[in-house]
Amino acid sequence: MLSAVGGIAVFLAATGGGVFAGEPLVIEKQGSFFVNGKTVVSAFPTGAGTPRPGKITIDQMYVQYQIPQVRAPRAYPVIMVHGSAHTGKTYDETPDGREGWQTYFLRRGIPVYVVDHAGRARSGFDATPSNQARLDGSPQRIPSFPKFTDEDAWLTFRIGSVPFIPHATTQFPVEAFSQYSAQLVPNTETSLAGAGANTVDALAALVDKIGPAIVMVHSQSGGYGLSVASARPGLVKAVVSVEPRTCAVSDIRSVFTRLPLLTVFGDFIEGSPTDWAKIMA
Amino acid sequence: MLSAVGGIAVFLAATGGGVFAGEPLVIEKQGSFFVNGKTVVSAFPTGAGTPRPGKITIDQMYVQYQIPQVRAPRAYPVIMVHGSAHTGKTYDETPDGREGWQTYFLRRGIPVYVVDHAGRARSGFDATPSNQARLDGSPQRIPSFPKFTDEDAWLTFRIGSVPFIPHATTQFPVEAFSQYSAQLVPNTETSLAGAGANTVDALAALVDKIGPAIVMVHSQSGGYGLSVASARPGLVKAVVSVEPRTCAVSDIRSVFTRLPLLTVFGDFIEGSPTDWAKIMA
Repeated sequence: MLSAVGGIAVFLAATGGGVFAGEPLVIEKQGSFFVNGKTVVSAFPTGAGTPRPGKITIDQMYVQYQIPQVRAPRAYPVIMVHGSAHTGKTYDETPDGREGWQTYFLRRGIPVYVVDHAGRARSGFDATPSNQARLDGSPQRIPSFPKFTDEDAWLTFRIGSVPFIPHATTQFPVEAFSQYSAQLVPNTETSLAGAGANTVDALAALVDKIGPAIVMVHSQSGGYGLSVASARPGLVKAVVSVEPRTCAVSDIRSVFTRLPLLTVFGDFIEGSPTDWAKIMA
Repeated sequence: MLSAVGGIAVFLAATGGGVFAGEPLVIEKQGSFFVNGKTVVSAFPTGAGTPRPGKITIDQMYVQYQIPQVRAPRAYPVIMVHGSAHTGKTYDETPDGREGWQTYFLRRGIPVYVVDHAGRARSGFDATPSNQARLDGSPQRIPSFPKFTDEDAWLTFRIGSVPFIPHATTQFPVEAFSQYSAQLVPNTETSLAGAGANTVDALAALVDKIGPAIVMVHSQSGGYGLSVASARPGLVKAVVSVEPRTCAVSDIRSVFTRLPLLTVFGDFIEGSPTDWAKIMA
Protein backbone atom coordinates (compact mmCIF):
# COMPACT_ATOMS: atom_id res chain seq x y z
CA MET A 1 0.00 0.00 0.00
CA LEU A 2 1.16 3.51 -0.75
CA SER A 3 0.37 6.48 1.39
CA ALA A 4 1.01 10.13 0.56
CA VAL A 5 2.35 12.24 3.38
CA GLY A 6 3.46 15.85 3.68
CA GLY A 7 3.15 18.76 1.26
CA ILE A 8 0.41 18.91 -1.29
CA ALA A 9 -0.64 15.56 -2.68
CA VAL A 10 -0.79 16.09 -6.41
CA PHE A 11 -0.13 13.74 -9.28
CA LEU A 12 -0.06 13.66 -13.03
CA ALA A 13 -3.34 13.05 -14.82
CA ALA A 14 -3.40 10.18 -17.28
CA THR A 15 -4.41 11.18 -20.78
CA GLY A 16 -6.64 8.13 -20.93
CA GLY A 17 -7.23 5.75 -23.85
CA GLY A 18 -4.71 3.75 -25.86
CA VAL A 19 -2.01 3.86 -23.25
CA PHE A 20 -1.90 0.33 -21.91
CA ALA A 21 1.10 -1.97 -21.81
CA GLY A 22 1.17 -4.04 -24.95
CA GLU A 23 -0.12 -1.26 -27.18
CA PRO A 24 2.50 0.38 -29.40
CA LEU A 25 4.38 3.31 -28.01
CA VAL A 26 4.87 6.20 -30.44
CA ILE A 27 8.08 8.16 -29.91
CA GLU A 28 8.83 11.49 -31.56
CA LYS A 29 12.47 11.66 -30.46
CA GLN A 30 14.83 9.72 -28.20
CA GLY A 31 18.49 9.75 -27.29
CA SER A 32 20.83 11.00 -24.59
CA PHE A 33 23.22 13.80 -23.70
CA PHE A 34 25.37 15.00 -20.83
CA VAL A 35 25.01 18.09 -18.66
CA ASN A 36 27.39 19.88 -16.31
CA GLY A 37 30.70 18.25 -17.27
CA LYS A 38 33.93 20.14 -16.73
CA THR A 39 37.40 19.55 -18.13
CA VAL A 40 40.29 18.88 -15.76
CA VAL A 41 43.75 17.41 -16.20
CA SER A 42 44.16 13.90 -14.80
CA ALA A 43 47.72 13.05 -13.80
CA PHE A 44 46.77 9.37 -13.53
CA PRO A 45 44.33 8.35 -16.25
CA THR A 46 45.66 4.82 -15.76
CA GLY A 47 47.06 2.93 -12.80
CA ALA A 48 49.49 0.80 -14.82
CA GLY A 49 52.72 1.60 -16.61
CA THR A 50 53.72 5.23 -16.95
CA PRO A 51 50.64 7.44 -16.98
CA ARG A 52 50.49 10.20 -19.56
CA PRO A 53 48.56 13.08 -18.00
CA GLY A 54 45.72 14.41 -20.08
CA LYS A 55 42.37 16.10 -20.08
CA ILE A 56 39.27 14.28 -18.90
CA THR A 57 35.68 15.29 -18.19
CA ILE A 58 34.34 14.98 -14.63
CA ASP A 59 31.07 15.79 -12.83
CA GLN A 60 28.99 15.16 -15.98
CA MET A 61 25.52 13.60 -15.72
CA TYR A 62 24.12 11.21 -18.34
CA VAL A 63 20.53 11.95 -19.35
CA GLN A 64 18.56 9.49 -21.49
CA TYR A 65 15.29 10.89 -22.85
CA GLN A 66 12.21 9.91 -24.80
CA ILE A 67 9.60 12.36 -26.11
CA PRO A 68 6.19 10.90 -27.02
CA GLN A 69 4.54 11.88 -30.29
CA VAL A 70 1.29 12.92 -28.60
CA ARG A 71 1.87 14.94 -25.47
CA ALA A 72 -0.60 15.11 -22.62
CA PRO A 73 -2.11 18.60 -22.32
CA ARG A 74 -0.52 20.78 -19.62
CA ALA A 75 1.87 17.99 -18.54
CA TYR A 76 5.48 18.88 -17.78
CA PRO A 77 8.30 16.46 -18.61
CA VAL A 78 9.37 14.23 -15.71
CA ILE A 79 13.02 13.84 -14.72
CA MET A 80 13.55 10.47 -12.99
CA VAL A 81 16.41 10.25 -10.49
CA HIS A 82 17.41 6.95 -8.86
CA GLY A 83 18.68 6.25 -5.34
CA SER A 84 21.81 4.91 -3.64
CA ALA A 85 23.45 1.88 -5.31
CA HIS A 86 21.04 2.20 -8.23
CA THR A 87 21.20 3.69 -11.73
CA GLY A 88 18.69 4.85 -14.34
CA LYS A 89 17.91 1.15 -14.76
CA THR A 90 15.55 1.61 -11.80
CA TYR A 91 13.04 3.21 -14.14
CA ASP A 92 13.32 1.26 -17.39
CA GLU A 93 11.96 -2.17 -16.41
CA THR A 94 11.05 -3.98 -13.20
CA PRO A 95 13.14 -6.99 -12.10
CA ASP A 96 10.32 -9.33 -13.18
CA GLY A 97 9.97 -7.82 -16.64
CA ARG A 98 7.07 -5.41 -16.24
CA GLU A 99 7.31 -1.98 -17.85
CA GLY A 100 9.18 0.62 -15.82
CA TRP A 101 7.90 4.08 -14.98
CA GLN A 102 9.90 5.46 -17.93
CA THR A 103 7.57 3.65 -20.34
CA TYR A 104 4.50 4.00 -18.10
CA PHE A 105 4.75 7.81 -18.15
CA LEU A 106 5.56 7.91 -21.87
CA ARG A 107 2.37 6.00 -22.64
CA ARG A 108 0.51 8.79 -20.88
CA GLY A 109 2.01 11.46 -23.12
CA ILE A 110 4.74 12.68 -20.79
CA PRO A 111 8.34 13.30 -21.93
CA VAL A 112 10.74 11.39 -19.69
CA TYR A 113 14.36 12.14 -18.80
CA VAL A 114 16.13 9.32 -16.90
CA VAL A 115 19.53 10.14 -15.40
CA ASP A 116 22.47 8.31 -13.88
CA HIS A 117 23.79 10.29 -10.89
CA ALA A 118 26.88 12.36 -11.70
CA GLY A 119 29.80 10.05 -10.84
CA ARG A 120 27.96 6.78 -11.34
CA ALA A 121 27.24 4.24 -14.13
CA ARG A 122 27.08 5.86 -17.60
CA SER A 123 27.98 9.22 -16.08
CA GLY A 124 31.45 7.84 -15.37
CA PHE A 125 33.57 8.72 -12.34
CA ASP A 126 37.08 9.97 -11.65
CA ALA A 127 39.47 7.03 -11.38
CA THR A 128 42.47 9.33 -10.85
CA PRO A 129 42.75 8.87 -7.05
CA SER A 130 42.54 5.06 -7.33
CA ASN A 131 45.06 4.93 -10.14
CA GLN A 132 47.46 7.20 -8.25
CA ALA A 133 47.08 5.13 -5.08
CA ARG A 134 47.92 1.98 -7.01
CA LEU A 135 51.05 3.49 -8.51
CA ASP A 136 52.46 5.35 -5.55
CA GLY A 137 51.28 3.01 -2.80
CA SER A 138 49.03 5.49 -1.02
CA PRO A 139 45.81 3.67 -0.05
CA GLN A 140 44.53 6.67 1.89
CA ARG A 141 43.82 8.29 -1.46
CA ILE A 142 41.33 5.60 -2.46
CA PRO A 143 37.68 6.60 -2.14
CA SER A 144 35.32 4.13 -0.50
CA PHE A 145 32.93 2.74 -3.11
CA PRO A 146 30.02 1.54 -0.97
CA LYS A 147 27.45 -0.83 -2.42
CA PHE A 148 24.30 -2.37 -0.98
CA THR A 149 24.68 -6.08 -0.39
CA ASP A 150 21.68 -8.28 -1.11
CA GLU A 151 21.10 -8.39 2.65
CA ASP A 152 21.16 -4.56 2.88
CA ALA A 153 18.73 -4.23 -0.01
CA TRP A 154 16.38 -6.88 1.38
CA LEU A 155 16.11 -5.06 4.71
CA THR A 156 16.29 -1.44 3.48
CA PHE A 157 13.55 -1.92 0.93
CA ARG A 158 11.63 -4.15 3.31
CA ILE A 159 11.15 -7.23 1.23
CA GLY A 160 11.34 -8.90 4.62
CA SER A 161 12.62 -8.19 8.12
CA VAL A 162 15.13 -11.06 7.92
CA PRO A 163 17.41 -11.40 4.85
CA PHE A 164 16.01 -13.68 2.15
CA ILE A 165 12.77 -14.41 4.04
CA PRO A 166 10.01 -12.34 2.44
CA HIS A 167 7.07 -10.84 4.27
CA ALA A 168 4.12 -13.16 3.64
CA THR A 169 2.28 -10.36 1.86
CA THR A 170 5.22 -8.74 0.10
CA GLN A 171 4.45 -7.24 -3.31
CA PHE A 172 8.08 -7.63 -4.40
CA PRO A 173 8.57 -10.29 -7.09
CA VAL A 174 10.87 -12.45 -4.97
CA GLU A 175 11.50 -14.93 -7.79
CA ALA A 176 13.20 -12.07 -9.68
CA PHE A 177 15.48 -10.98 -6.82
CA SER A 178 18.65 -11.95 -8.72
CA GLN A 179 17.67 -9.51 -11.49
CA TYR A 180 17.19 -6.85 -8.84
CA SER A 181 20.54 -7.57 -7.18
CA ALA A 182 22.23 -7.30 -10.60
CA GLN A 183 21.19 -3.65 -10.91
CA LEU A 184 23.03 -2.58 -7.74
CA VAL A 185 26.32 -0.75 -8.39
CA PRO A 186 29.01 0.89 -6.23
CA ASN A 187 28.46 4.57 -5.36
CA THR A 188 31.47 5.88 -7.27
CA GLU A 189 30.42 9.52 -6.98
CA THR A 190 32.61 9.39 -3.84
CA SER A 191 35.53 9.89 -6.27
CA LEU A 192 34.33 13.44 -7.06
CA ALA A 193 34.96 16.41 -4.80
CA GLY A 194 31.28 17.35 -4.79
CA ALA A 195 29.92 13.77 -4.42
CA GLY A 196 26.09 13.98 -4.43
CA ALA A 197 26.08 17.78 -4.78
CA ASN A 198 27.23 17.34 -8.39
CA THR A 199 23.94 15.62 -9.17
CA VAL A 200 22.02 18.59 -7.74
CA ASP A 201 24.09 20.98 -9.90
CA ALA A 202 23.55 18.72 -12.92
CA LEU A 203 19.78 18.60 -12.34
CA ALA A 204 19.77 22.40 -12.24
CA ALA A 205 21.70 22.45 -15.53
CA LEU A 206 19.19 19.97 -16.95
CA VAL A 207 16.14 22.14 -16.24
CA ASP A 208 18.09 25.17 -17.52
CA LYS A 209 18.49 23.23 -20.77
CA ILE A 210 15.07 21.57 -21.20
CA GLY A 211 12.83 24.07 -19.42
CA PRO A 212 10.14 23.54 -16.77
CA ALA A 213 9.88 19.97 -15.48
CA ILE A 214 8.79 17.77 -12.61
CA VAL A 215 11.58 16.06 -10.68
CA MET A 216 11.01 12.54 -9.34
CA VAL A 217 13.55 11.35 -6.78
CA HIS A 218 14.09 8.18 -4.75
CA SER A 219 15.73 7.44 -1.41
CA GLN A 220 19.26 8.96 -1.49
CA SER A 221 18.17 11.50 -4.08
CA GLY A 222 15.22 12.71 -1.99
CA GLY A 223 17.30 15.61 -0.77
CA TYR A 224 18.55 16.29 -4.29
CA GLY A 225 14.97 16.89 -5.45
CA LEU A 226 14.35 19.44 -2.72
CA SER A 227 17.69 21.14 -3.34
CA VAL A 228 17.15 21.53 -7.07
CA ALA A 229 13.63 22.86 -6.44
CA SER A 230 15.19 25.43 -4.14
CA ALA A 231 17.91 26.28 -6.68
CA ARG A 232 15.52 26.55 -9.66
CA PRO A 233 12.08 27.42 -8.23
CA GLY A 234 10.86 28.77 -11.57
CA LEU A 235 11.83 25.65 -13.50
CA VAL A 236 11.08 22.79 -11.09
CA LYS A 237 7.30 22.68 -11.17
CA ALA A 238 6.79 19.85 -8.66
CA VAL A 239 8.76 17.20 -6.81
CA VAL A 240 7.67 13.57 -6.49
CA SER A 241 9.71 12.02 -3.71
CA VAL A 242 9.63 8.24 -3.37
CA GLU A 243 10.79 7.16 0.08
CA PRO A 244 13.22 10.08 0.51
CA ARG A 245 16.12 9.60 2.86
CA THR A 246 16.79 13.24 3.70
CA CYS A 247 15.41 16.75 3.52
CA ALA A 248 18.56 18.68 2.71
CA VAL A 249 17.25 22.20 2.19
CA SER A 250 16.96 24.65 5.04
CA ASP A 251 14.21 26.67 3.39
CA ILE A 252 11.90 23.76 2.62
CA ARG A 253 8.89 25.64 3.98
CA SER A 254 9.41 28.66 1.74
CA VAL A 255 9.98 26.50 -1.35
CA PHE A 256 7.06 24.16 -0.83
CA THR A 257 4.48 26.77 -0.06
CA ARG A 258 4.86 27.50 -3.79
CA LEU A 259 5.64 24.11 -5.30
CA PRO A 260 3.66 20.86 -5.15
CA LEU A 261 5.46 18.05 -3.31
CA LEU A 262 4.24 14.47 -3.29
CA THR A 263 6.04 12.14 -0.90
CA VAL A 264 5.27 8.45 -1.21
CA PHE A 265 6.20 5.59 1.11
CA GLY A 266 5.77 1.89 0.36
CA ASP A 267 4.54 -0.89 2.59
CA PHE A 268 6.08 -2.34 5.77
CA ILE A 269 7.50 1.07 6.77
CA GLU A 270 6.15 1.14 10.29
CA GLY A 271 8.52 -0.31 12.85
CA SER A 272 11.15 -1.13 10.22
CA PRO A 273 14.81 -0.10 10.60
CA THR A 274 14.11 2.44 7.85
CA ASP A 275 10.97 4.04 9.21
CA TRP A 276 11.68 7.21 7.29
CA ALA A 277 8.28 8.70 7.96
CA LYS A 278 9.18 8.58 11.64
CA ILE A 279 12.76 9.76 11.06
CA MET A 280 11.44 12.71 9.10
CA ALA A 281 8.69 13.59 11.57
CA MET B 1 34.86 7.50 -46.05
CA LEU B 2 34.14 3.94 -45.00
CA SER B 3 35.68 0.92 -46.64
CA ALA B 4 34.70 -2.70 -46.11
CA VAL B 5 37.54 -5.16 -45.79
CA GLY B 6 37.81 -8.88 -45.11
CA GLY B 7 35.14 -11.55 -44.84
CA ILE B 8 31.92 -11.32 -46.76
CA ALA B 9 30.59 -7.80 -47.13
CA VAL B 10 26.94 -8.06 -46.20
CA PHE B 11 24.62 -5.60 -44.55
CA LEU B 12 21.08 -5.25 -43.39
CA ALA B 13 18.51 -4.19 -45.96
CA ALA B 14 16.44 -1.14 -45.12
CA THR B 15 12.72 -1.78 -45.11
CA GLY B 16 12.22 1.50 -46.98
CA GLY B 17 9.53 4.12 -46.49
CA GLY B 18 8.55 6.02 -43.36
CA VAL B 19 11.79 5.43 -41.57
CA PHE B 20 13.45 8.81 -41.63
CA ALA B 21 14.63 10.81 -38.63
CA GLY B 22 11.83 13.09 -37.51
CA GLU B 23 9.08 10.62 -38.29
CA PRO B 24 7.52 8.90 -35.26
CA LEU B 25 9.09 5.69 -34.07
CA VAL B 26 6.62 2.96 -33.12
CA ILE B 27 7.84 0.66 -30.37
CA GLU B 28 6.16 -2.60 -29.41
CA LYS B 29 8.21 -3.21 -26.28
CA GLN B 30 11.22 -1.67 -24.53
CA GLY B 31 13.11 -2.12 -21.29
CA SER B 32 16.23 -3.78 -19.92
CA PHE B 33 17.48 -6.86 -18.11
CA PHE B 34 20.71 -8.48 -16.97
CA VAL B 35 22.37 -11.66 -18.16
CA ASN B 36 25.11 -13.84 -16.69
CA GLY B 37 25.27 -12.48 -13.14
CA LYS B 38 26.54 -14.70 -10.35
CA THR B 39 26.24 -14.34 -6.59
CA VAL B 40 29.37 -14.13 -4.45
CA VAL B 41 30.06 -12.97 -0.91
CA SER B 42 31.86 -9.63 -0.69
CA ALA B 43 33.88 -9.20 2.50
CA PHE B 44 34.24 -5.47 1.77
CA PRO B 45 31.04 -4.04 0.30
CA THR B 46 32.25 -0.68 1.67
CA GLY B 47 35.65 0.84 2.29
CA ALA B 48 34.60 2.89 5.35
CA GLY B 49 33.71 1.92 8.89
CA THR B 50 33.30 -1.76 9.68
CA PRO B 51 32.21 -3.66 6.59
CA ARG B 52 29.43 -6.22 6.99
CA PRO B 53 30.12 -9.00 4.50
CA GLY B 54 27.20 -9.91 2.31
CA LYS B 55 26.10 -11.26 -1.03
CA ILE B 56 26.53 -9.24 -4.20
CA THR B 57 26.10 -9.95 -7.91
CA ILE B 58 29.15 -9.77 -10.18
CA ASP B 59 29.86 -10.39 -13.88
CA GLN B 60 26.34 -9.34 -14.92
CA MET B 61 25.76 -7.47 -18.19
CA TYR B 62 23.11 -4.77 -18.60
CA VAL B 63 21.06 -5.10 -21.79
CA GLN B 64 18.70 -2.30 -22.88
CA TYR B 65 16.35 -3.26 -25.71
CA GLN B 66 13.72 -1.86 -28.02
CA ILE B 67 11.49 -3.94 -30.32
CA PRO B 68 9.82 -2.08 -33.21
CA GLN B 69 6.13 -2.67 -33.91
CA VAL B 70 6.73 -3.50 -37.57
CA ARG B 71 9.69 -5.79 -38.09
CA ALA B 72 11.70 -5.93 -41.27
CA PRO B 73 11.21 -9.27 -43.03
CA ARG B 74 14.01 -11.79 -42.45
CA ALA B 75 15.99 -9.32 -40.30
CA TYR B 76 17.64 -10.59 -37.13
CA PRO B 77 17.89 -8.43 -34.02
CA VAL B 78 21.18 -6.52 -33.67
CA ILE B 79 23.18 -6.57 -30.45
CA MET B 80 25.31 -3.41 -30.19
CA VAL B 81 28.53 -3.64 -28.17
CA HIS B 82 30.69 -0.56 -27.45
CA GLY B 83 34.46 -0.26 -27.19
CA SER B 84 37.10 0.64 -24.59
CA ALA B 85 36.26 3.60 -22.32
CA HIS B 86 32.76 3.74 -23.81
CA THR B 87 29.32 2.49 -22.75
CA GLY B 88 26.00 1.78 -24.48
CA LYS B 89 25.74 5.58 -24.82
CA THR B 90 27.86 5.12 -27.97
CA TYR B 91 24.78 3.95 -29.82
CA ASP B 92 21.94 6.10 -28.48
CA GLU B 93 22.82 9.56 -29.80
CA THR B 94 25.82 11.21 -31.47
CA PRO B 95 27.74 13.91 -29.56
CA ASP B 96 26.16 16.60 -31.77
CA GLY B 97 22.61 15.38 -31.22
CA ARG B 98 21.93 13.23 -34.28
CA GLU B 99 20.12 9.91 -33.83
CA GLY B 100 22.33 7.02 -32.82
CA TRP B 101 22.42 3.64 -34.54
CA GLN B 102 20.05 2.30 -31.88
CA THR B 103 17.26 4.49 -33.28
CA TYR B 104 18.50 4.27 -36.88
CA PHE B 105 18.17 0.48 -36.92
CA LEU B 106 14.83 0.57 -35.08
CA ARG B 107 13.39 2.84 -37.75
CA ARG B 108 14.29 0.13 -40.26
CA GLY B 109 12.31 -2.50 -38.35
CA ILE B 110 15.18 -4.16 -36.51
CA PRO B 111 15.04 -5.05 -32.79
CA VAL B 112 18.04 -3.54 -31.01
CA TYR B 113 19.83 -4.71 -27.85
CA VAL B 114 22.42 -2.23 -26.51
CA VAL B 115 24.73 -3.48 -23.76
CA ASP B 116 27.18 -2.05 -21.25
CA HIS B 117 30.20 -4.37 -21.00
CA ALA B 118 30.10 -6.67 -17.96
CA GLY B 119 31.97 -4.72 -15.26
CA ARG B 120 31.30 -1.25 -16.63
CA ALA B 121 28.68 1.54 -16.33
CA ARG B 122 25.15 0.20 -15.60
CA SER B 123 26.54 -3.34 -15.42
CA GLY B 124 28.33 -2.35 -12.21
CA PHE B 125 31.73 -3.67 -11.14
CA ASP B 126 33.26 -5.30 -8.07
CA ALA B 127 34.46 -2.61 -5.66
CA THR B 128 35.60 -5.23 -3.11
CA PRO B 129 39.35 -5.02 -3.91
CA SER B 130 39.34 -1.21 -3.76
CA ASN B 131 37.41 -1.14 -0.51
CA GLN B 132 39.67 -3.76 1.06
CA ALA B 133 42.80 -1.90 -0.09
CA ARG B 134 41.50 1.30 1.48
CA LEU B 135 40.78 -0.37 4.80
CA ASP B 136 43.84 -2.58 5.16
CA GLY B 137 46.35 -0.32 3.42
CA SER B 138 47.17 -2.68 0.58
CA PRO B 139 47.15 -0.60 -2.62
CA GLN B 140 48.61 -3.50 -4.61
CA ARG B 141 45.11 -5.01 -4.50
CA ILE B 142 43.60 -2.16 -6.47
CA PRO B 143 42.87 -2.77 -10.11
CA SER B 144 44.00 -0.14 -12.56
CA PHE B 145 40.94 1.66 -13.97
CA PRO B 146 42.28 3.01 -17.28
CA LYS B 147 40.41 5.71 -19.14
CA PHE B 148 41.06 7.45 -22.45
CA THR B 149 42.08 11.05 -22.00
CA ASP B 150 40.76 13.57 -24.49
CA GLU B 151 44.20 13.47 -26.13
CA ASP B 152 44.06 9.65 -26.40
CA ALA B 153 40.59 9.76 -27.91
CA TRP B 154 41.52 12.52 -30.37
CA LEU B 155 44.45 10.50 -31.71
CA THR B 156 42.97 6.98 -31.45
CA PHE B 157 39.81 7.90 -33.28
CA ARG B 158 41.78 10.12 -35.67
CA ILE B 159 39.95 13.39 -35.29
CA GLY B 160 43.40 14.80 -35.96
CA SER B 161 47.03 13.71 -35.80
CA VAL B 162 47.82 16.33 -33.12
CA PRO B 163 45.55 16.66 -30.07
CA PHE B 164 42.81 19.25 -30.46
CA ILE B 165 43.78 20.17 -34.03
CA PRO B 166 41.28 18.49 -36.35
CA HIS B 167 42.07 17.16 -39.79
CA ALA B 168 40.87 19.80 -42.27
CA THR B 169 38.37 17.33 -43.73
CA THR B 170 37.34 15.55 -40.50
CA GLN B 171 33.72 14.38 -40.38
CA PHE B 172 33.74 14.48 -36.57
CA PRO B 173 31.56 17.30 -35.14
CA VAL B 174 34.45 19.05 -33.40
CA GLU B 175 32.17 21.64 -31.80
CA ALA B 176 30.56 18.77 -29.84
CA PHE B 177 33.82 17.26 -28.57
CA SER B 178 33.01 18.06 -24.93
CA GLN B 179 29.85 15.94 -25.23
CA TYR B 180 31.99 13.14 -26.65
CA SER B 181 34.57 13.42 -23.88
CA ALA B 182 31.77 13.22 -21.30
CA GLN B 183 30.83 9.72 -22.45
CA LEU B 184 34.26 8.25 -21.70
CA VAL B 185 34.38 6.16 -18.51
CA PRO B 186 37.04 4.12 -16.68
CA ASN B 187 37.36 0.46 -17.73
CA THR B 188 36.26 -0.99 -14.40
CA GLU B 189 35.89 -4.53 -15.75
CA THR B 190 39.51 -4.86 -14.56
CA SER B 191 37.96 -5.46 -11.11
CA LEU B 192 36.52 -8.80 -12.28
CA ALA B 193 38.57 -12.00 -12.57
CA GLY B 194 37.45 -12.56 -16.14
CA ALA B 195 37.76 -8.91 -17.28
CA GLY B 196 36.66 -8.72 -20.93
CA ALA B 197 35.94 -12.46 -21.13
CA ASN B 198 32.86 -11.88 -18.97
CA THR B 199 31.36 -9.80 -21.75
CA VAL B 200 31.89 -12.66 -24.21
CA ASP B 201 30.19 -15.07 -21.78
CA ALA B 202 27.38 -12.58 -21.27
CA LEU B 203 26.89 -12.11 -25.02
CA ALA B 204 26.60 -15.91 -25.34
CA ALA B 205 24.01 -15.89 -22.53
CA LEU B 206 22.18 -13.08 -24.34
CA VAL B 207 21.79 -14.99 -27.62
CA ASP B 208 20.82 -18.10 -25.62
CA LYS B 209 18.02 -15.96 -24.15
CA ILE B 210 16.81 -13.96 -27.17
CA GLY B 211 17.65 -16.36 -30.01
CA PRO B 212 19.46 -15.76 -33.31
CA ALA B 213 20.98 -12.28 -33.66
CA ILE B 214 23.63 -10.21 -35.39
CA VAL B 215 26.42 -8.92 -33.14
CA MET B 216 27.88 -5.47 -33.82
CA VAL B 217 31.16 -4.71 -32.05
CA HIS B 218 33.55 -1.77 -31.89
CA SER B 219 37.28 -1.44 -31.24
CA GLN B 220 38.04 -3.28 -27.95
CA SER B 221 35.01 -5.52 -28.43
CA GLY B 222 36.05 -6.57 -31.94
CA GLY B 223 37.53 -9.75 -30.53
CA TYR B 224 34.44 -10.30 -28.35
CA GLY B 225 32.28 -10.45 -31.48
CA LEU B 226 34.47 -13.11 -33.06
CA SER B 227 34.65 -15.08 -29.80
CA VAL B 228 30.89 -15.15 -29.27
CA ALA B 229 30.37 -16.16 -32.91
CA SER B 230 32.76 -19.04 -32.27
CA ALA B 231 31.00 -19.97 -29.01
CA ARG B 232 27.48 -19.80 -30.46
CA PRO B 233 27.79 -20.43 -34.20
CA GLY B 234 24.12 -21.40 -34.49
CA LEU B 235 22.86 -18.25 -32.80
CA VAL B 236 25.22 -15.53 -33.99
CA LYS B 237 24.10 -15.03 -37.58
CA ALA B 238 26.63 -12.35 -38.58
CA VAL B 239 29.22 -10.05 -37.04
CA VAL B 240 29.56 -6.36 -37.90
CA SER B 241 32.95 -5.23 -36.66
CA VAL B 242 33.60 -1.49 -36.55
CA GLU B 243 37.33 -0.78 -36.35
CA PRO B 244 38.14 -3.94 -34.38
CA ARG B 245 41.24 -3.91 -32.26
CA THR B 246 41.88 -7.66 -32.15
CA CYS B 247 40.98 -11.00 -33.66
CA ALA B 248 40.94 -13.15 -30.57
CA VAL B 249 39.73 -16.49 -31.91
CA SER B 250 42.13 -19.10 -33.17
CA ASP B 251 39.57 -20.72 -35.48
CA ILE B 252 38.46 -17.56 -37.24
CA ARG B 253 38.75 -19.24 -40.65
CA SER B 254 36.44 -22.11 -39.72
CA VAL B 255 33.86 -19.79 -38.14
CA PHE B 256 33.77 -17.22 -40.92
CA THR B 257 33.54 -19.61 -43.79
CA ARG B 258 30.01 -20.10 -42.43
CA LEU B 259 29.12 -16.71 -40.98
CA PRO B 260 29.01 -13.31 -42.68
CA LEU B 261 31.54 -10.83 -41.28
CA LEU B 262 31.56 -7.14 -42.19
CA THR B 263 34.58 -5.19 -40.98
CA VAL B 264 34.44 -1.42 -41.36
CA PHE B 265 37.19 1.16 -40.93
CA GLY B 266 36.71 4.91 -40.87
CA ASP B 267 38.77 7.64 -42.46
CA PHE B 268 42.39 8.71 -41.81
CA ILE B 269 43.41 5.12 -40.98
CA GLU B 270 46.40 4.94 -43.31
CA GLY B 271 49.64 5.97 -41.69
CA SER B 272 47.94 6.70 -38.35
CA PRO B 273 49.23 5.29 -35.04
CA THR B 274 46.17 3.04 -35.11
CA ASP B 275 46.42 1.68 -38.61
CA TRP B 276 44.51 -1.42 -37.61
CA ALA B 277 44.03 -2.63 -41.16
CA LYS B 278 47.82 -2.85 -41.36
CA ILE B 279 48.20 -4.34 -37.87
CA MET B 280 45.65 -7.02 -38.75
CA ALA B 281 47.14 -7.79 -42.17
